[in-house]
Parts: sequence; structure tokens; C-alpha cells
Amino acid sequence: MKKISILGSTGSVGRQTLDVIKHNKGEFKVVGLASRFARDILVEQIRDFSPGLVSVLNSKEKKKLEEMISDLKVKPEIVCGLPGLIKVATHPEAEMVVVAVVGIVGLLPTLKAIEYRKDIALATKEVMVIAGKIVKQALKRFKVNLIPVDSEHSAIFQCLNGESPTHLKKILLTCSGGPFRGKTRKELEKVTVSEALCHPNWKMGQKITLDCATLMNKGLEILEAKWLFNVEFEQIEVIVHPQSIIHSLVEFKDGNIAALLSSPDMRHPIQYALSFPKRLKNGFSRRLNLAKVGQLTFEKPDIRRFPCLSLAIQAGKIGGTMPTVLVAADEVAVEKFTQGKIAFTKIPEIIKKTMNSHRVIKNPSLSHIFAADRWARRKAAGLI
Amino acid sequence: MKKISILGSTGSVGRQTLDVIKHNKGEFKVVGLASRFARDILVEQIRDFSPGLVSVLNSKEKKKLEEMISDLKVKPEIVCGLPGLIKVATHPEAEMVVVAVVGIVGLLPTLKAIEYRKDIALATKEVMVIAGKIVKQALKRFKVNLIPVDSEHSAIFQCLNGESPTHLKKILLTCSGGPFRGKTRKELEKVTVSEALCHPNWKMGQKITLDCATLMNKGLEILEAKWLFNVEFEQIEVIVHPQSIIHSLVEFKDGNIAALLSSPDMRHPIQYALSFPKRLKNGFSRRLNLAKVGQLTFEKPDIRRFPCLSLAIQAGKIGGTMPTVLVAADEVAVEKFTQGKIAFTKIPEIIKKTMNSHRVIKNPSLSHIFAADRWARRKAAGLI
Repeated sequence: MKKISILGSTGSVGRQTLDVIKHNKGEFKVVGLASRFARDILVEQIRDFSPGLVSVLNSKEKKKLEEMISDLKVKPEIVCGLPGLIKVATHPEAEMVVVAVVGIVGLLPTLKAIEYRKDIALATKEVMVIAGKIVKQALKRFKVNLIPVDSEHSAIFQCLNGESPTHLKKILLTCSGGPFRGKTRKELEKVTVSEALCHPNWKMGQKITLDCATLMNKGLEILEAKWLFNVEFEQIEVIVHPQSIIHSLVEFKDGNIAALLSSPDMRHPIQYALSFPKRLKNGFSRRLNLAKVGQLTFEKPDIRRFPCLSLAIQAGKIGGTMPTVLVAADEVAVEKFTQGKIAFTKIPEIIKKTMNSHRVIKNPSLSHIFAADRWARRKAAGLI
Repeated sequence: MKKISILGSTGSVGRQTLDVIKHNKGEFKVVGLASRFARDILVEQIRDFSPGLVSVLNSKEKKKLEEMISDLKVKPEIVCGLPGLIKVATHPEAEMVVVAVVGIVGLLPTLKAIEYRKDIALATKEVMVIAGKIVKQALKRFKVNLIPVDSEHSAIFQCLNGESPTHLKKILLTCSGGPFRGKTRKELEKVTVSEALCHPNWKMGQKITLDCATLMNKGLEILEAKWLFNVEFEQIEVIVHPQSIIHSLVEFKDGNIAALLSSPDMRHPIQYALSFPKRLKNGFSRRLNLAKVGQLTFEKPDIRRFPCLSLAIQAGKIGGTMPTVLVAADEVAVEKFTQGKIAFTKIPEIIKKTMNSHRVIKNPSLSHIFAADRWARRKAAGLI
């Protein structure tokens, strides 16, 4: 049995990870869970999977959780805060850590898990976007596998399986186009939060769903792919594919193109990351029936209407602390949009302004990265 | 430089193989060519590639060819007949033999090439259809690679690269549907030879193009896939995909599906077979532009209107000498159709009647196979 810790167990990927584990009896054992809040679903997870260690946001949540599980016969050790999160990530028994928290908070626990030689199943794309260079160095130094959980990156990873890195010519990153694919710029000014939260194909968390609506998510995925697969930005092309059946493609230098398909269900890439290099039987999802799907369509992305895509590429090309600023400003802007404080089209404007006033540090240390994050959050908030 | 012999060098695959070799200067050296007739194109090939050995159908063609190349300074040795074909297939310098002749004539040279430890690039699918078991045993015994050249089987081969055989759940064999996809049974009765020879996507030889029109080609591909990839018939599904962009798909047991795409150009799978396990730069073909293609469509095949598909599966399930009878009767019937002697819809009827009056030999030897071939040809011809 592969022993697993999950950071962000009550989020969308965390819950689906546990569902995959439940469907693969005898294959996995959950040894650690981390969630921000002491919610009912966390208690349920503790009851169902009996982890030895659970971490929550702070001592208040810790106390609350202790009360909520007071009736359990076998109780986990409960820890909290960043030290708690790191304790779960470095649990002595864990062989793999699923990193599925939102944003920069995933960075330190990921690096610590690598240092302790845990394989990483990475859903928190910000980790690679912000600190790709540092993470890659750590993976190399400690000889650790990192398997992406994002459906696109999992697809690329699977397409490259068995191929020499020299065969890769181009990555074709598919993109559903989000809920606002057909909308004009004028219409985009008036879209509501609930419209933005209606993703046409995928069941995901709130932040990533909103990032899909602005196409920032695709932008972050470009940066993530650059680090994961050692490619230049010129080797990554975004193609709009509204059905989300082909999760991405890899063009080889001989003109052959590999693609990975499945019904849009995050449990596919999650199970692949958990079981890699094996493939396990799938006991949960409906088979993809291509004849029933009937058609798959493709179009070029419209960068003018969705400026977040080019902002991300710009930040990636500048490098250093700029991707951190991109991510932080995006988080602030998206939060303000969900609170109804700014229009949808203001999101890229705030990010752009924040980026424009940032003084980049090339080859940043972790403290430079965290400082840039704090700076960008203040800056972006001040722009609203 | 990989040294190569080509059986069937003036056919469609043979010519495209030489084109691939021409585009990859310094990678390959042609040491042997075999063609049935002493045609101008063969002389051109001899002039361009300077093989040391050339084989033609018989002594008459040999004499003719000798006259045609009398002005050449460096002349190849010219041989003929089946011994000649085998001599090219077992050329001492050849490391790989491209088998691209039509039909059963490819069988003995392929087996001899394997015995002499030449890797095989197989375009002549009849070899596997008729004698899959014998060929597989030889490949195992002499530790030889066989790389399929058929676009579908090359796609499956590439999709399985790096995967454990236990991961494979199903093969999805794509099929353009041929030139008569939309036609009713009544309309099919009246189709002409020239209509049948108009394949919507692929540039191929005459026999295979007609087999595409009846869907017999897809049937033979099912039998070939069964042997190449060690699967049961129940694990192979045909899906109609009129654009011929996805060349086939492999469904893994975890629900993920790998696909291989390219513009429909036989030089892609040919180059892959020649360069395997490497991939070489592609200096000839237009990049597949999915946004320009716009859409890929899929539908179920209509077995009632195209009975050759189920006849092939039936022959495959019966096994023994029955696939040989299928192939032989098909060749006779297709030839009669091209001569205007029978209607298009008579092709499956003749095959069916021939199959029905055949006494199957289970686990046939090579002589059983050749006897069944001769028997079926006489039988089918007698039915017209």
C-alpha cells in the first residue's frame, strides 16, 4: 500500500483524491490530512480514512476539531499552522504527498516534502509558477518524482511517457475557453460572479474556476508546463477545445502528435498521479464514448478579449519575482470580483498595473519570493 | 546509417519510403530493392539510391531491366522470382526490411528476413492476417522487432510506447468510412471502379484503396491488430472518423485514452518505422493545424451496409486457414470488380460463399496456408 498525505483534503482535488483512494481498496493508505478549517467534511474524512496526523489553519480550528472528533475511538494527532502543514507533508510514513492547497502556501510544504524524499502529486500549480527553478533543483537533488495532477499537465506527462525529451517539439495546451468564450468585451464588463463560476465542463474549486473564466488559469498552466517539461514559451501553444475531451497534445519533431483523452473528470489525472508508473483499474468513471460525443472542435484563443493569458506569458518571460506578483495580484483581484467590488474586466487591469510597478528580482531566494507576494497583495489591494 | 531493403519499392508505400529516405540524408542507406516489373520508376530508384541488389518478377523482367540500366556505370546485381525476393529480404548488409508488396507473396520473404535477424517495417498487412501466429513465434525466437507501417497500427504502437502491456484495455481503430460512407445499399450496387478508387484522405495503392471502399481493409486491420498487440477481438472497436486525423486510439484500464494524430500522409508512419526507437526531424510534411482543421467527428460503423467488416472478424475468430481464404477470395473478387465483371456489392457475397465452403485447418503450416490460398482463388473465381 502506498502511504499518502494530502494537503488541502477538503478542497475539490482533495475530496476527489480521497474518492479515488476509496475506489482502490488495498492500494493506498492515508497517513496525513491537512485542511484549513475544522469542517464536517474533515471529520468525515478522519472517520473514513483514519489518518494518524491532521493539520488545520490555527489553534482555534485545532480546538474546534478536537471537540468535533471527541467521540472517535482512535483519534489522530492534531497540529496547526504552517508547522502543522509541513509536519503532514513530511510525515515519516508518507511516500507521496498530494499538494492541493490554493496558492503560495503550498510552496514550503512541497519543498520540505521533496527534502524528505516524498514523491509529489502536484495540483497547486502556483508552486511551479512561482518557484519552478527552486523546485526543479530540489527534485533533482533529492531524486524525487513530481507528477502533475492538472488534467492538461497529466496529459502531457502521459504523452511523453517512453519518449526521449529530444523528441518533443511543441506542447499544445488545450483550453475549454471558459464560460465566456463567445462574449464580446462589452458583455464581459457586465458578467456576474455566478456566471463566472459556471464552468462548462469541469467540477473544480472557486478560485480556479474564476481563473478559467479570465483564462489566467491557462496562463499559469503555460508557466507550469515550461518548468515541468523544460520547454521554451515558443514551444507552448494554446488551443481552444470547448469539449474538454482532449486534455492536451504533444507534437514530436517527426510531425506525429500524441494526445490524451478522457471524459472530463479530475479523478482520471488524480488516479494516474497516485498510481504512477502503474495504471490501476478505474472503478468510478463512465467510459468516454467518442461516437456519442460525435465531434471535437478546435479554435485559436482570442488574446485580446482575455488579456490575462498574455499577462501570464509576459510575467513568465520576465521571470524572477514577476510570476509571484502575477499570482498574488490575481488572487487579490479575483477576490474583489467575487465580493462584487470590481467588474470582471478590471481583473487584468489590476494585475497589469501591479506588474508594471514591480521591481523584479532575478534569481530570487524564497524570502524574495514571499516578500514579492506580500508587496503585490498590498499593491493590488491599494489599486481597488 | 541504417541499411535498408525494400520489398515493393515501386508501389505506393515503397515510393514514399524512398521519399522519406531522401529527406533524411545521412540516416539511411538502401541496399536492396524489389519490384515486380522493370519500370522507368525502378530505373530511377536504382539511379538515385544505388542499391547493390535488385529483384524483379521473372527472367523476362530481369532481361528488360538489364537493358534499361545498361548505361549506368555502377550496376546492381539483378535477381528474380521468389528466390530473388528472398535474396533482397536477407541481404547480408540489411538491418531492416520494409515489406510493402501486395498480399501473400510477402509472407516467405518476411519470415526469411526475421530468420536472418533483420528488423521488419511491415506494410503488407496480409502477412500478419494470414500467418500471425507463425510470424509472432519467429519474432520471439530470433528476437526481432516488427514495427507496423499502417497508419492505424503505427498509431497504436506509438500510443503503447512506454506502457506496460497490462495497461491496455481496448484498441479504438479509426476508419475514414471510405468513399461510400453515406451511401445506401441500393446506391452501393451501382458504384463504379473510379468512384471506389477515390479515397477521401489517403494516397494509397489500388488494392488497398478498394479494400477501404468495402471496409475489408478495416477488417484486415482488426486481424493484424489482434496479432500485433496480443488482444482479443472484443478488445478492438472500430470507430468511423472521416477526417483521418486521429489514426487510432488506445484505451487504458484507468479510463485514460491515448491517441495519435497527424496530417494524413503515409510518410509519417513510414519514417517512424524506419527510425524507431528514435524520432527524426520531419523535413517534408505540413504541420497539422488543429485550429484550421476545426473539427474532428466520430460515428459508429454501419456493419450492415459493409459486410466485409464482419466477414473479416468472423474469419479471424475461426482462425486457422480461414483468414487466408478471406484474403484470397477478396483479392479475386476485387480484381473482378475492377475489370467491370461484378458489381461492388458482389464482393462480400463471393468472399462469404468461398469462406462457407472452406474446410478449415487449425494451426496450419506454411504449406497448408499456401494450399488454402490456391484453393480459395480457384473457388472464388469459379463463383463469378
